[in-house]
Amino acid sequence: VLPRRLDEVVRLLTRLPGVGEKTAMRYALRLVGDPTLARDLGQHLQQLPDRVRPCERCCNLAEIADDGRFLCTVCLDTRRDLKVLCVVAKVQDLMAIERSGAHRGRYFVLGRLLSPLDGVGPEELPLGALLRRIEEDEAEEIIVATPPSVDGEATALLVAREVAKLSIRVSRIASGVPHGGDLEFADQVTLGRAIDGRRQFD
Amino acid sequence: VLPRRLDEVVRLLTRLPGVGEKTAMRYALRLVGDPTLARDLGQHLQQLPDRVRPCERCCNLAEIADDGRFLCTVCLDTRRDLKVLCVVAKVQDLMAIERSGAHRGRYFVLGRLLSPLDGVGPEELPLGALLRRIEEDEAEEIIVATPPSVDGEATALLVAREVAKLSIRVSRIASGVPHGGDLEFADQVTLGRAIDGRRQFD
Repeated sequence: VLPRRLDEVVRLLTRLPGVGEKTAMRYALRLVGDPTLARDLGQHLQQLPDRVRPCERCCNLAEIADDGRFLCTVCLDTRRDLKVLCVVAKVQDLMAIERSGAHRGRYFVLGRLLSPLDGVGPEELPLGALLRRIEEDEAEEIIVATPPSVDGEATALLVAREVAKLSIRVSRIASGVPHGGDLEFADQVTLGRAIDGRRQFD
Repeated sequence: VLPRRLDEVVRLLTRLPGVGEKTAMRYALRLVGDPTLARDLGQHLQQLPDRVRPCERCCNLAEIADDGRFLCTVCLDTRRDLKVLCVVAKVQDLMAIERSGAHRGRYFVLGRLLSPLDGVGPEELPLGALLRRIEEDEAEEIIVATPPSVDGEATALLVAREVAKLSIRVSRIASGVPHGGDLEFADQVTLGRAIDGRRQFD
């Protein structure tokens, strides 16, 4: 019964995380009923891939600059402490730590965790880029803030082993974040404690 | 920390029904990570308002035809029984009844229900358009399939009173659909029973 073009919109919307056909249909009908919203969102989404990309330095999300480069607000902020680099799994985790205000240094976003079951091995992680970043910034301490899950811990150990080659301090956030939990959804106090209570790899 | 353009996308996404800031953020990050999806969805959404609009005859959703007119697939289907017209509150309800296969006639979508608390009075409903539709189709029976809620029943009575002026049969779907429920989410058997068990206004 539905117009083919609306069906297509529904099909595309179901590719968003956690969106089934019924939810996609509700979204689509809302968009049909609000032409301004549909046009605005459509225009923004079309421009998104050309304007928002991973930061060249840390893989956080960055907006294109006048010179065509992608550098995130954290990397552009000269008041940041270059000595401390915080390694996170994903951009949401970086945002959560920023909200806690407990870290004043910079970040490196791995983009994924080691996951043998999903076929993600060490070679899939951007460890080379991480080491280059550490050397360029002349960082003195690495805080590994991957989540306290099996994959997160394995990734933390791998990062610690790689960084050990450079003979600099590596620490792991404290287990203030509950085991198996997600940094993205931890409260600010918990995240602040996790950062404050970090312990060195021995 | 977020790029301004991504913030804007998040803001627009929160205007979708039931989408809060966290969900909008998840959607936005998925879209940043999938440029093809962002571009495709963006293009479709931009074109949506010009290509999908309410059907000129019944207010069901319709795709633009080569002649620039908007007529839905139900209204274009010449095998439909013009004698029976089903009045529904919204397009989702029409789709649910179509899935049940219990109605072979056409539809009229009111777009809203009487709702004194929200300031929706009889003059906000397209009753004139409904009466014109009935006369043009020379319909012989009107099935009022508004939901069995307070607003739905009030709307059904209003529609019945208006249609009574034309001296044609008006029926109400049976209460196979549970009171206070939503047609959109009723199963096909329930909706089929509701259509079969309709009773005439007396």
